[in-house]
Amino acid sequence: MKAVVLQKGNQLALEEVSKPEIIDPDDIVVKVTTAAICGSDVHIKYGEIPGIPPGTVIGHEFVGLVDDVGPAVTRFSPGDRVDVAAGLWCGYCPACRRGEIQNCSQGAVFGGGMFRGKLLQGTQTEYVRVPNADMCAMKIPKGVSDEQAVLVGDVFSTGYHAAREGNIDTGDVVAVFGCGPIGLAAVISANLFGPKRVYAVDVFENRLALAKKYGAVTINASSEDPISRIMSDTDMDGVDIAIEAVGQPKVLGQAIGSIRRGGTVSVVGLFPGSFELPLQMLGLYGFRLSMGLANLAYMNQLMAMVENGNVNLSDFCTHTFPLDQAMEAYELFEQHKDQCLKVMLKV
Amino acid sequence: MKAVVLQKGNQLALEEVSKPEIIDPDDIVVKVTTAAICGSDVHIKYGEIPGIPPGTVIGHEFVGLVDDVGPAVTRFSPGDRVDVAAGLWCGYCPACRRGEIQNCSQGAVFGGGMFRGKLLQGTQTEYVRVPNADMCAMKIPKGVSDEQAVLVGDVFSTGYHAAREGNIDTGDVVAVFGCGPIGLAAVISANLFGPKRVYAVDVFENRLALAKKYGAVTINASSEDPISRIMSDTDMDGVDIAIEAVGQPKVLGQAIGSIRRGGTVSVVGLFPGSFELPLQMLGLYGFRLSMGLANLAYMNQLMAMVENGNVNLSDFCTHTFPLDQAMEAYELFEQHKDQCLKVMLKV
Amino acid sequence: MKAVVLQKGNQLALEEVSKPEIIDPDDIVVKVTTAAICGSDVHIKYGEIPGIPPGTVIGHEFVGLVDDVGPAVTRFSPGDRVDVAAGLWCGYCPACRRGEIQNCSQGAVFGGGMFRGKLLQGTQTEYVRVPNADMCAMKIPKGVSDEQAVLVGDVFSTGYHAAREGNIDTGDVVAVFGCGPIGLAAVISANLFGPKRVYAVDVFENRLALAKKYGAVTINASSEDPISRIMSDTDMDGVDIAIEAVGQPKVLGQAIGSIRRGGTVSVVGLFPGSFELPLQMLGLYGFRLSMGLANLAYMNQLMAMVENGNVNLSDFCTHTFPLDQAMEAYELFEQHKDQCLKVMLKV
Amino acid sequence: MKAVVLQKGNQLALEEVSKPEIIDPDDIVVKVTTAAICGSDVHIKYGEIPGIPPGTVIGHEFVGLVDDVGPAVTRFSPGDRVDVAAGLWCGYCPACRRGEIQNCSQGAVFGGGMFRGKLLQGTQTEYVRVPNADMCAMKIPKGVSDEQAVLVGDVFSTGYHAAREGNIDTGDVVAVFGCGPIGLAAVISANLFGPKRVYAVDVFENRLALAKKYGAVTINASSEDPISRIMSDTDMDGVDIAIEAVGQPKVLGQAIGSIRRGGTVSVVGLFPGSFELPLQMLGLYGFRLSMGLANLAYMNQLMAMVENGNVNLSDFCTHTFPLDQAMEAYELFEQHKDQCLKVMLKV
Repeated sequence: MKAVVLQKGNQLALEEVSKPEIIDPDDIVVKVTTAAICGSDVHIKYGEIPGIPPGTVIGHEFVGLVDDVGPAVTRFSPGDRVDVAAGLWCGYCPACRRGEIQNCSQGAVFGGGMFRGKLLQGTQTEYVRVPNADMCAMKIPKGVSDEQAVLVGDVFSTGYHAAREGNIDTGDVVAVFGCGPIGLAAVISANLFGPKRVYAVDVFENRLALAKKYGAVTINASSEDPISRIMSDTDMDGVDIAIEAVGQPKVLGQAIGSIRRGGTVSVVGLFPGSFELPLQMLGLYGFRLSMGLANLAYMNQLMAMVENGNVNLSDFCTHTFPLDQAMEAYELFEQHKDQCLKVMLKV
Repeated sequence: MKAVVLQKGNQLALEEVSKPEIIDPDDIVVKVTTAAICGSDVHIKYGEIPGIPPGTVIGHEFVGLVDDVGPAVTRFSPGDRVDVAAGLWCGYCPACRRGEIQNCSQGAVFGGGMFRGKLLQGTQTEYVRVPNADMCAMKIPKGVSDEQAVLVGDVFSTGYHAAREGNIDTGDVVAVFGCGPIGLAAVISANLFGPKRVYAVDVFENRLALAKKYGAVTINASSEDPISRIMSDTDMDGVDIAIEAVGQPKVLGQAIGSIRRGGTVSVVGLFPGSFELPLQMLGLYGFRLSMGLANLAYMNQLMAMVENGNVNLSDFCTHTFPLDQAMEAYELFEQHKDQCLKVMLKV
Repeated sequence: MKAVVLQKGNQLALEEVSKPEIIDPDDIVVKVTTAAICGSDVHIKYGEIPGIPPGTVIGHEFVGLVDDVGPAVTRFSPGDRVDVAAGLWCGYCPACRRGEIQNCSQGAVFGGGMFRGKLLQGTQTEYVRVPNADMCAMKIPKGVSDEQAVLVGDVFSTGYHAAREGNIDTGDVVAVFGCGPIGLAAVISANLFGPKRVYAVDVFENRLALAKKYGAVTINASSEDPISRIMSDTDMDGVDIAIEAVGQPKVLGQAIGSIRRGGTVSVVGLFPGSFELPLQMLGLYGFRLSMGLANLAYMNQLMAMVENGNVNLSDFCTHTFPLDQAMEAYELFEQHKDQCLKVMLKV
Repeated sequence: MKAVVLQKGNQLALEEVSKPEIIDPDDIVVKVTTAAICGSDVHIKYGEIPGIPPGTVIGHEFVGLVDDVGPAVTRFSPGDRVDVAAGLWCGYCPACRRGEIQNCSQGAVFGGGMFRGKLLQGTQTEYVRVPNADMCAMKIPKGVSDEQAVLVGDVFSTGYHAAREGNIDTGDVVAVFGCGPIGLAAVISANLFGPKRVYAVDVFENRLALAKKYGAVTINASSEDPISRIMSDTDMDGVDIAIEAVGQPKVLGQAIGSIRRGGTVSVVGLFPGSFELPLQMLGLYGFRLSMGLANLAYMNQLMAMVENGNVNLSDFCTHTFPLDQAMEAYELFEQHKDQCLKVMLKV
């Protein structure tokens, strides 16, 4: 079968690989129907995420049809249409018992992670082996398209995690920095907690237009300073919660600069470098910071919101390509061509 | 009356000042019986806390007897023995309504703060004017000594705040860095949340001995590396919560280095300088950080714990001096002489 | 001045009473512009709420203009347009410090309550004395009408309290029993917590039509059994949270019968009689129940939601009468004439 | 092998049954070393818990050694010493994802429950089949005796659940009604949340003596009225949290009568009959009620507390019998002879 495979020298290629089979009794094998490209796939291409050797099939966002089930699987049968979380968790380690499945002691992401000592190959391909499927996969409700469902297992869950970590309360004011897929998902998610207002900050007008459609008050950071605007709008108080959805130290500084005394900065995802935290100021001003990988365990609730029509993610997918044209898809995505947001591969 | 007054040139002096009177209808005036010296008083002496001009009476930890009450006061009468929070809050601004009284828009600390536009003189003197007394003061139960009560309004509340921000859950492992008064109060407070174990880290054996008495497992950082010890003890997982009670960037680094994935670092108080936050590592590892001034609103509950004997703070006060010898008290305290912990002035 | 005064023999009358004046230093006197009639006013008329003697001015929902301020008041000046909570709280008793201001040890409702030993006359009149005004009153933002603002201090806060007690989480299913003003406010409020779906149950089509407008799925209990419908819709699981907003033991039974295992029943307001709780069944099934008066302390956040347009309460007020015609207003309200929902008196 | 088997006519008998084997891939088979008798076993004997037919092996509290493991089991090997929760849960249904594993849609208790369509035989025997073992069983740390470990999977978890549902906060006052094993576990557990005081109410002096040893202030309900005593002690406020650990409607009434305004009543376990809830009074007074089966998912944390010595359960087991003398054990237990508390069978 064909797959997007990491090469030496910061390259990807479409290669022939062998079809996976059931190994552990709780595995399922899924025939991929749609796999999405994530920003972190580009980081992997350029070697910015350690531990993924050339030869690995990459990708971690996908939906498909159950092709085979292991003998310990109780919830799935061949033919079921399923969404699978981008990463797996065990369900019983201390982190999982606390509900922090993103910190699972055995946790691993598709496309390079190791789960119970075995490599999790990626999902930009035709078939994927999914261990611990009863725990980490779910059936897709009838009315939900592949293009929406594939977002639930990673993008929506990640934006939701960022919002949830902010402990948004009724009437709060929120600022989301960055309106890529994660940022837009954070805007949508923040609105599930009853805020008074959500600001969305970006420099691309098409992304800001979507944020506005999802209910945000938009700030184009290329034409006005977001901190000044937010402070001015809030009687110099600042927002209750700022969400960093870009992954740049400079933007983290803007997020910290935008909060009220005792406000929260919620960060998801991967950063380069470090950040000079002004301890003297913040020790008097007061703030809370949350960083880390996203908790994907809310995907059932989030899928229910999509199914019921409370949330509509159909604007996220701007481009689809057949798997055969995966390299063209990557070129478009990586170079931000044609106002693309989310680019998906159809298998 | 006599008072400890900030001088130019990083000096303090015992001077004659005028006795305060009721100004606002919700004021009380308290005749001080015991006032404690806090580490931040030394910071003030050396000009490290901005905005406090020479000529200001310093100090913010005190208990005493109500001397006079304003016409809007409903809870106090002359002669009542009272403990007053180290700082005041209004009770109705957005921060107060959220319960974050430390971020009160009008909040101010005795000894230099401005509350409703009027200077709050300090408490190392004979009489203190206390605005908003119904909200920020409390009667001291009969069996509680001055030396214990004076700790409730600042030291115990601050250590408790640090522990509470950690969201300690049953069976958690906690590490407290620093065993000065705040750190010891954090050890005591952490144990109110049902942890499995509390580590206490310091370099002074007398302070570690007290931490041990309060139930901690002690680590002398001058003889072993606290991160290595904690990681070794916890199967390389790290602690659930680390509390920084020193106020040094280096120790904050140790606290961050000691937590488990997704663990919390809780910080109170004042830091010099900044801290280089390793975003790349922490974005994958996951952590939460809480910084800021302490919420003093739990003093009623904490006083109840002292009154009932659940908590015993009588080891904190190692030295007392009459107000007349305040300069001698400061010298001993500032130079850490005679294994002093908490030094108090009797008026 | 004129006022609606409780009479002997289950009657109300419009009578002349004396204008109130500042008594305590933290009082304000408010010139009423709009006062609303609440269902509990009818209970008071019929002597169903104990402790309110004939001769008392009744009513507790009102907005107006500040007429006079006591010397300890810091937030208001004559002429300010204000909304006042239906009941007062002290801000510093143990209940208030826990944030449960509805259980304030000094708490009292306008129109018969005693606050600090003095009667709180009601608000269906021309002027009202408001103690502890800095804490319990708020300025009304410019764009918010009297008819919306007057709902914030009681009706909206009560519906919101009911929803908040349910701890509604993302994707939850909620059922609100009763679509009077409180029930409709509960529907609106439930939607602030990101539920998947809110059911609204009533027997009046006009009220169900409003509930539908506010986003609910409606069930007319006169044409279908709400428990059967809800169970059928939820795969026989039941809803996560049921809110009782009628005040009838029979409806409480329906609410309990509609929840999932471990679900929550949230109840506000006043009930006649008692309820036979089936311990044997519920001990195995699992449930949580919350009852009591509403916490009015969220009125600032709720007003912000109205001001910002997130919530629109303008459909609630179906009829207004001049104070002179208060008896006609009561007749219409009490007899549910003309599809009335909320009836208000203009002063 | 021998087993305690339910008979017709409210009898138990020691019978020969066949040894269980691995059926599902995630099963383990445990060789029982200690099985405890629970009060609900006596309810089962008398047919008071529906759905358990004669011929069923009863019992649900046990520890032992792993004898065999299914092919999907990852955490256990033959010879491991294990504690197993009294009931099983799936880990991925909506209730389990919420952390309410006691409401698992597939959940079942040993000794009569059905898990995934197969009967869970009881544990007062020589070997027990344990499905979903990776999730619901745990290794016993070296220093923890069988007699303590067997309490963690049911008794301690149940008392802890009761306390946790009360949301006990620092300085709260708690009353535990009933000092049987569950009540004593609730006393111990309440103290993990930093209360000011825990009252323990019973009529047996030996049980009250143990409660006192565990830190409670005791009330002998045969010599004084617990409501009067509690109200008198608390300035007529009442306790913050009352825990009902008896299972009698009359005692539930005492619990409700003992709480402060807005207090919580936490109930675990099985009740006969119903309770007349005084809606009119409670609607004004305010209260929260929690009922249901216990959440057993904290057993890892609770075992850690036993292992570390924070909690000592060694006084609970007053009598042990060999399995051969199970009928004698039941006679002693059922008739409360010899001041027995917890009676255990050694296999």
